[in-house]
Parts: sequence; C-alpha cells; structure tokens
Amino acid sequence: MTPGNEAHLALFTDLYELTMAESYLQQGMNQPATFSLFTRRLPVNRGYLVSAGLEDILRYLEALRFSEEEIEFLHGTGLFSEDLLSYLEQFHFTGEVWAIPEGRLYFPDEPVVEVTAPIIESQLVETFILNQVNLQSLIATKAARCLSAGQGRTLVDFALRRTQGTDAGMKAARCSYLAGFASTSNVLAGKRYGIPLAGTMAHSFVSSFEHEIDAFRAYASSFPDNAVFLIDTYDTLSGAHKAAVVAKEMEGQGHRLRAVRLDSGDLIALSRQVRLILDQAGLDYVEVFASGSLDEYSVETVLDAGAPIDGFGIGTKMGVSADAPWLDNAYKLVKYNDRPILKLSAEKVTLADEKQVYRLRDKNGMFAEDVIARREERLTPEAEPLLIRVMEGGRIIQPPPSLKEIRQRFQEEFSRLPALYKALREPPSYPVRLSHGLLRLQEEAKRYAEQEEVRLP
Amino acid sequence: MTPGNEAHLALFTDLYELTMAESYLQQGMNQPATFSLFTRRLPVNRGYLVSAGLEDILRYLEALRFSEEEIEFLHGTGLFSEDLLSYLEQFHFTGEVWAIPEGRLYFPDEPVVEVTAPIIESQLVETFILNQVNLQSLIATKAARCLSAGQGRTLVDFALRRTQGTDAGMKAARCSYLAGFASTSNVLAGKRYGIPLAGTMAHSFVSSFEHEIDAFRAYASSFPDNAVFLIDTYDTLSGAHKAAVVAKEMEGQGHRLRAVRLDSGDLIALSRQVRLILDQAGLDYVEVFASGSLDEYSVETVLDAGAPIDGFGIGTKMGVSADAPWLDNAYKLVKYNDRPILKLSAEKVTLADEKQVYRLRDKNGMFAEDVIARREERLTPEAEPLLIRVMEGGRIIQPPPSLKEIRQRFQEEFSRLPALYKALREPPSYPVRLSHGLLRLQEEAKRYAEQEEVRLP
Repeated sequence: MTPGNEAHLALFTDLYELTMAESYLQQGMNQPATFSLFTRRLPVNRGYLVSAGLEDILRYLEALRFSEEEIEFLHGTGLFSEDLLSYLEQFHFTGEVWAIPEGRLYFPDEPVVEVTAPIIESQLVETFILNQVNLQSLIATKAARCLSAGQGRTLVDFALRRTQGTDAGMKAARCSYLAGFASTSNVLAGKRYGIPLAGTMAHSFVSSFEHEIDAFRAYASSFPDNAVFLIDTYDTLSGAHKAAVVAKEMEGQGHRLRAVRLDSGDLIALSRQVRLILDQAGLDYVEVFASGSLDEYSVETVLDAGAPIDGFGIGTKMGVSADAPWLDNAYKLVKYNDRPILKLSAEKVTLADEKQVYRLRDKNGMFAEDVIARREERLTPEAEPLLIRVMEGGRIIQPPPSLKEIRQRFQEEFSRLPALYKALREPPSYPVRLSHGLLRLQEEAKRYAEQEEVRLP
Repeated sequence: MTPGNEAHLALFTDLYELTMAESYLQQGMNQPATFSLFTRRLPVNRGYLVSAGLEDILRYLEALRFSEEEIEFLHGTGLFSEDLLSYLEQFHFTGEVWAIPEGRLYFPDEPVVEVTAPIIESQLVETFILNQVNLQSLIATKAARCLSAGQGRTLVDFALRRTQGTDAGMKAARCSYLAGFASTSNVLAGKRYGIPLAGTMAHSFVSSFEHEIDAFRAYASSFPDNAVFLIDTYDTLSGAHKAAVVAKEMEGQGHRLRAVRLDSGDLIALSRQVRLILDQAGLDYVEVFASGSLDEYSVETVLDAGAPIDGFGIGTKMGVSADAPWLDNAYKLVKYNDRPILKLSAEKVTLADEKQVYRLRDKNGMFAEDVIARREERLTPEAEPLLIRVMEGGRIIQPPPSLKEIRQRFQEEFSRLPALYKALREPPSYPVRLSHGLLRLQEEAKRYAEQEEVRLP
C-alpha cells in the first residue's frame, strides 16, 4: 500500500481502546453506543470548518480486521485475555455512521460524524477517525481561507516537502483541491486522486547550468508549450530580462512562455517590475506566478496592494495549517444502551444523545443559522438536515462521491456562507443554537449526573 | 504496507523533479551533484535541533524503483519522452549519503544530510528526504523540550489521535521515544519500534457505567496490577474519593492501584487536593498523572508551582509541534560536476560545496562551538566530525542503529549541551562559525555568480 492509503490499521489505535475492550468484554458490556465527533471551539481566526476525511474513515471501517500477526503481538504484551484475543480475531465493524458530507461547512459543537455500534467496536475506532478528521478538516479549512484570499487567482499546492509526513502530504493535496486549489505538485496525489499536476523548476536546475539563461533555454526546449521559469536564483530583475530574451526566442519558434515564478524578496515591488519588463518586451501574455512561505494572510496583503500576480504556489503554511496546526475535536460517548450520556469535566461539557444538525437559510438562500437537535426531532420543513446515514451494518451505503463532486459541493456551499464569516481575522461566530428538545435533555442529564456522581463522601 | 512504512514512494515527489529530469536527460546532463539539507533558522524559542529521520531516508533510497503502473501513469500525463520513461524504468539510486546521525544535535546552516549522485537521482529524491527530516527532526526537537521541562517526570506520548495523519502519528511515537519519553499510547508504534506501551481509560469508559465507581471497579478487576483511573469525568475531587475507595478494596485483594489521571481543570490546585485525598487514605504509593493540552510550557508552569504530579501524558501540542509546526529547511545544490555552487536569492543564500561539521568541546567536555568546513578540510584533532558516510553506491553501509541506541546517543548528546541553550524561551544562539576554507570559497563563488549572472542587459 502507498502513503495516505494504508492497510493494516487495526493497531493504529491508543492502547486504552484495547484495555477498555478487555474490561467491557469481562463485564459482558457490549450494548450499542453512540459516539459523537465534534469540535469544541474554532481555531484562531476561523469562522467555519470544512468537513473532510469521511471517505477514508468509511473505507477504514469497512476493511478493519486484526491479522494473525497483530493478534500475536497483542498476546505478547501480556495485557489481554484469550477471550479478548478470540474476540479480536473475529472482529469486524458492524455499526452505523451518520455524517456531514465532505465539502460541507460545520461549526462548533455540531457532530460531524456519529458512530453507533456495540461499544467495543465504536470505541476501538476512535483514534483513526479522530486522526483523519483532525488532519483533513484542518487542511480543507486552511485551503478554503487561501481561496478567499486569492480572489480568483490560480492556487497550486506546493506543500509536499514540508507536510508532517507522507499521509499529510497526500491529504494536503486532496483537501486543498477539495477547497478549490487548481492543481498540486504532488505526483502521487495526481495519480491517486486525479488532481491536475503542476510544476516549474528548482533553483538547483538553474544553478546546475553555467549560466542562468542556458537553464531557461534547456527547459524551453524540453517543454516548449508548458514552461515556467524560476527567475530569482541570482537576481529577480536580471532573471526577468533573461526570461524575456528566451521568451522572444520561443516566439520565433512558434511557442509561448507560460509564466515566470518569483520565490523570494518583496513580491509586491518585484512583481510590478517584472510585469513591466515582460510588457515592455511585448510579453503581456506571460503570467507572473509567486511562491515562497505564502499563506492566506500574505496573499491578501500582496493582492490588496495591487500586485500584478496571476497565481500562487502555496506550500508549507497551508500544508501544516501553520497558524492553527490542530483542531480541538473530540469523540465522545453520547448514548449507551439507550441512556443519553454527557460529561461534565471543566470546560469540556459534551452534548448528550444522537443528534441532527439543521441548517436554516435566509430569503436569499444564504446560510442564516444552524440548530443542533436530537436526531429524531423534526424542525420546520425548510430546515435542511446535514447529517446523512452513510454506513449501515458496517457497509458503506452508497459509493462515496468523487473528489470532483465534493469540490463542487464545497464551491456551492461556500458561496452560501455570508462573507462576514469568511473574514481572515476575528470573524464573528456563526449562529448555532440548541433545539428545545436537546436543551431539555441536557438539563435532565446534567441534573442526573450531578446528583448521582458529584457527591463527596 | 502500514502507516509510517510505505512502499511505492517513487511518485511521492514534486512534479518538477521529473520535468527537470526530462530536461537534464535531453541535455545529456547527469554528472554528479551534491545536495545539502540544512535549516536556515531555528523555529521560535528553539536553541537546537535533534537529528531524526535518517533511517527512513536510507531505506527509501535503497528501495526506490518505478513500477510499471507508475511509469504508465507518467506516460499518460503526456509530459515525458520515451527516453525519460525508459530511464525511469531502470532507475535505482546509486549515490552516496553523508549525515549527522539520528539523536545528535545540529544547528542552523549545518548540513544534516548531504546526497551525492548523478543529478537526476539526487534531485528526484528531494521531496521525500525533506518531508521526513522536516517531520522527524521537528518532533524529536519538540519532545526534547518537553523532556527538559519534565525535570525527570515520566512522559508518555498521547498524540496519535491528533497528529497530522498516520505517518505523523507513527513518527511522533518514534521521535518522542528517541528524545526520552518513557512510552506511547500508539499500539502500532509499540509493535513496529519496540516502544513500551501505556494507556489508562477514556471518559467514555467511565460514563458508559451507571456509576463512576463501577467503572473503576470493573477496570481494577481486569487490570488489578496495572490500573490508572481517570477521575475527572464528573468532578475531579469526587472522582478522587471514589478512586481511593476502590484502591482500598484493591489492597484488600493484595493489589495496588498504580495512578489516577487528571485531564482537565486547574492541574496545580487539583493535583494538590487529589494528592491529599490519596495520602489521607494511606495511598501515598498511588501516583498522580496529568494530561490535557499539555506542552513544555505548561509542564514547566505546573512543576515550577510545585504541583505533586508524577507523570504527564503529552499529546497534540507535542505531536504537531504546535508552537512551531514546521522547520525552515531546504535541500540545495552545492556542487555540480566539480563546480561549487551557491544561490544568492534574497535572504536565502546557501553555502557552496560538500561540507563537514566539526564540534568543539570545552575542558569539561561540554559543547562549545561548531565549525562548518569544506568536507576535505581538517581541523584540530579534538574537533569531532559530525557527518558520517552512511550510504555508498546506493547501499546502506552498515545496519542503522536501533531506536534504543539512538535514544541513548541522544541522552549522552543532550547532557553535553550547556543548559542555557535548552531554555524554553528565547535561548541564545549556539556558536556556529564557518572555517577559513569555506569562507574563502563562499567569497569566490559569490563573486563569480554576481559577475556572471547579475548583469542587467
């Protein structure tokens, strides 16, 4: 198997998932349990999150088995009974999953995934599910912010070399494309996900030639209709003049240089000067492309200053979500054996029971408010339920949408979110309230827990 | 293959590595090239970096091949000639690698890996090499900082659920153990790397029982000599009293509760109160373990306040290196076809030529200064060369050290770094200078590049 698409994930789990399984089995406790995956609060400067990661979760759940070798390892730890090991030998996931589809927006406290299964099963799968939603929703959200900042410019994923590992590199390509990036430099992501590929040249290419202009000529001869010259290896303006010389030579042979790329220095000033050099040489069709430690904040700055830049390569800071590198998400038990459950830990209260999230629109079709309700509650007919049942009896109900379909769904969804929530800095909170039914249940469950559990001896 | 240990990595590369290969091949340019991987500047509050990731890099280089399916995909892009595709069909890495071994410390501008091979080969492997050093050195460094803050307390890796993907989860376990963590919750990392496993119970376990105390009793009966109770599901002090009741019951059966875990609230105040409850019940042997959004800064704060905490579970913020989620590292051409090469881009100047790094100690054996030199330069006999030749002709020279050996090397190495460079906030810069030979070469190469390349037409 290849990065971002691994098999043999059964042991990709926290030890306590297995020690709890041992204890549940010994207690004869394996009734249905529902776990809810939600985010407690949005990371800094975020006004929304983008749902992503569901396809990987569903494929994991469908494929999950313990191999003989894995059972053998668990046996060797000395922690587990023969009963548990036999149980794990037969293990497969038999439960049900509800989820907010990939590419849709969600907000704090809203369950983005709910898993119902015998508690040993629904508990055991916690770690991988959290891991993937944390990564993919994080990156899709960061990429959506870059899209807002880019004002329609072409954005390309350049993150692969500095993502946090191989899986993150694959998912950065997937999730940035999902959120509207045009292409990726990641060749394997092109193959796996069908994402268009893009690439230019490295500084090493330029400097491996005795003269910069020879590097441009060599590249142009290999890619006469698809060349982008990197012009800052020695000096950006000097590089722009040489690029213009080679571009005119290419014209003579019936070809056109596509773009030049700036990768360092003051992008606002340099892009203006480079644009001028190109225009004065009659090369107004040659685009100016910029890269180098960019993110939504710097893209906004250079575009607000009117820099004539046609596209951006966005790498590390998008690929690691640099200003907010994790989501404060959790996977919490909300119902066990028909009993709604909540947790009272300081600042970490959870909402009990299985849920549905309803989205209400204003008269222009823009998102106005979300309501978190109990799953069986019905709101007005216009209220759109966001959670869909996607797995039943451990089987995916219908083939997941293609990445292109998810990308289109995101585009439609994002256009319905009022602009104020897309502000890159300190956006207001999108309105999310609890339904009357859920509120009442919370109060009951809280009273019960406090009465029963918080008495000091 | 499983996470963190993938095969089929040939396409895990940036597109430009392949388009440059196309152009090099057409130009008949495939002379030996040396690339140097180094960090331009340390992330915020860092005084050092820990070398990590080398074993994965070497295994990747040894195994790297293009499968028929991968060649077919590249063919389908329409970008590449039959010549290049034939070349890739036969491709294997034939080069040489020098590196600073895993577990050693390094500083800005020091090459931690240098790769010499025909330029198509040494260029093509850039992406994966950068990706792995970025991740593993980043996490090993973050974990080392937690170790400093922990003042000898037991530290456990709890990061798996919120690392940036599966590979990062595996490498977080590996690199935190390398830097001195005692154990991990990641079961697969226990199997793969032989790291001791640790785990307690989740809030869901407690709340799946009708009463908290029943959960403690059930767990104690499954793990009578190895139980840690999570006591904050409803109320930490109330949980501590119940834990004490069950611990006394366990004593009656000849067993001992190992620890209780706090996961929320004011850890300083709560740990004192919980310690008191345990001590008053005659349970002074029961340890207090803390977790919940911890990092080196918060561990330092609670220990400086004298909180009676015996161990820490450190998760997300270590696993994503939250305050500095990437390294500003680069992989730059420094020599091609016997010509030393440097790059002059604004703020991104690189040092030319193949290098060695020498470490000098003071009379107490503590690290005093590093000198970056040309590889063939010899300094005084006491100067210890850090870069070792680890691969020749595409083959690993000798089996890489075990993770335990690397861990020991780190411990020894870290003890030699003066404490001031380990400060968690704004440490001074460790002295790194260039040798006379390297300085002279830089000036020559710079003069050459400026004369030849920075003339405006």
